[in-house]
Amino acid sequence: MLKAVQNLGSSSVFLSQLWKKAHHNTACGLSSVAISTNPLSNSASTDRRRRRHASTIEPDFFILPVFSTRGIRSFRESRVCVTRSESNPDATSPSSSSVLVQSAGNVHKINFCQWCGGSTKHDIPDGEEKMRAICTVCGKIAYQNPKMVVGCLIEHDKKILLCKRNIEPSYGLWTLPAGYMEIGESAADGAIRETWEEAGADVEVVSPFAQLDIPLIGQTYVIFLAKMKKPHFSPGPESSECRLFALDDIPFDSLAFSSIFVTLNLYIDDIRTGRLKFHYGTINKRPGSSPSDMRAFSLDYHCGPDM
Amino acid sequence: MLKAVQNLGSSSVFLSQLWKKAHHNTACGLSSVAISTNPLSNSASTDRRRRRHASTIEPDFFILPVFSTRGIRSFRESRVCVTRSESNPDATSPSSSSVLVQSAGNVHKINFCQWCGGSTKHDIPDGEEKMRAICTVCGKIAYQNPKMVVGCLIEHDKKILLCKRNIEPSYGLWTLPAGYMEIGESAADGAIRETWEEAGADVEVVSPFAQLDIPLIGQTYVIFLAKMKKPHFSPGPESSECRLFALDDIPFDSLAFSSIFVTLNLYIDDIRTGRLKFHYGTINKRPGSSPSDMRAFSLDYHCGPDM
Repeated sequence: MLKAVQNLGSSSVFLSQLWKKAHHNTACGLSSVAISTNPLSNSASTDRRRRRHASTIEPDFFILPVFSTRGIRSFRESRVCVTRSESNPDATSPSSSSVLVQSAGNVHKINFCQWCGGSTKHDIPDGEEKMRAICTVCGKIAYQNPKMVVGCLIEHDKKILLCKRNIEPSYGLWTLPAGYMEIGESAADGAIRETWEEAGADVEVVSPFAQLDIPLIGQTYVIFLAKMKKPHFSPGPESSECRLFALDDIPFDSLAFSSIFVTLNLYIDDIRTGRLKFHYGTINKRPGSSPSDMRAFSLDYHCGPDM
Repeated sequence: MLKAVQNLGSSSVFLSQLWKKAHHNTACGLSSVAISTNPLSNSASTDRRRRRHASTIEPDFFILPVFSTRGIRSFRESRVCVTRSESNPDATSPSSSSVLVQSAGNVHKINFCQWCGGSTKHDIPDGEEKMRAICTVCGKIAYQNPKMVVGCLIEHDKKILLCKRNIEPSYGLWTLPAGYMEIGESAADGAIRETWEEAGADVEVVSPFAQLDIPLIGQTYVIFLAKMKKPHFSPGPESSECRLFALDDIPFDSLAFSSIFVTLNLYIDDIRTGRLKFHYGTINKRPGSSPSDMRAFSLDYHCGPDM
């Protein structure tokens, strides 16, 4: 079972006062932040659909940190996580309902050279230290690198826009609009594109908010603060619903991904402390944890300017 | 020819005073920042060596912005760039001295499925908008995504550590220690690793400093401020020399990559303005520029907290 999540311990009056400070010139009221203690249900997905590349992100675990009065920094010391499914959506067939899974960075699954078709050997090249798939015909190396997932944290009328996933992984759970960054676009453009595709919202980027690396699955989340150009949104094909949530209504017990959980908590903590900052951090599995069991993760390297 | 680079216009006294402010508790003197007006020589590489993956980064262009009294923000309005070589070092043979080039994101160079060896077709999958290489046998899609280059801007004794490249691309030119982020590591760990490999320096990350996307070549630079645990460095195999540079001695006329040029100027500008910030930006080619000619680039989306 997952460990219960405790309340941030912030009063509504305090948050209300600090929202204005965090947003410089925005005066608004804000009720208290109460994070649900409900554990994540593993049976949330009932009508599973096939995945599409553009929105299939961080599939593997879910973090429930324990907050202390020190706020979000307690991420470093205590959190509990469960592994929900081992999957990575790099390779899916658009014409098949079956989900084809490729683990992040498994060099041994690369059997052929994508340029010449020659078979590969798996070896450590001269001058390197990591195992690579090397073509036995042309000699090219099939390098694998982490993927960037880009998305938007959209503030509107003191609320945050979330999307309920209409696809796997994490079907039926809530997330920020986000997806894989494409070749030829910037992270900001990718985040804007994904927001349009998943939430039908035309947004502009305000500021970078967080970079969260997840080495376990070879992904890096880059989340921007953004705002809607027009107050309109509607779910795209990958979302069953889009909704603005007040901070005290965010469904922390049914978020899709640990990165989203961390991002939203960092955001709330910034509101609480009165200043929106940029956050870098690494979501790491605790050493010694077993792949088949519930896991413990930590937010390491949590740093940023003025921290 | 490249356009001359103008002086940042900062006085040594001003910078000296503001270094302390930017570093909060560090008091030090700093002489004036004078950026060279020398154009980049295209004949810098005389004894070219084969490239290695770990350090082969952003090969394609070089930015020389024109500064105004507004400082680094003038990146947005005016800069000049030259395309030096069209190359991307994704695929190199460790056993061959010839450089095998793969353009970033050229789906038409993917001819075979790396999982089953089947031939690919190039088409837009259902529900997507971009051309992909799709296996005609197993149906898997070979997605291509931008790569992250991670590195360190190392401050030591009021100086910055740079490495002279001993490999292509940009052989003989100066850069920050940086290279491709690997599967299974965080950006911070990757930056620390690259610094050790290229500069023999054991560093710790202080704070994220910049994310610079380069959509043209499908790369994103993530640069951290870092400091040496011990005051020791020595060039690794990919560097012919490592040296600490005072800010007024940085060799701006012989830097290896536009991203490094931008990063160092953002850093100097932060020192000048008295506060180190996090910077997001996109290095874009100016619309309408020709592939075979000198180019104009702009730093778009330049933003960050407190900008």
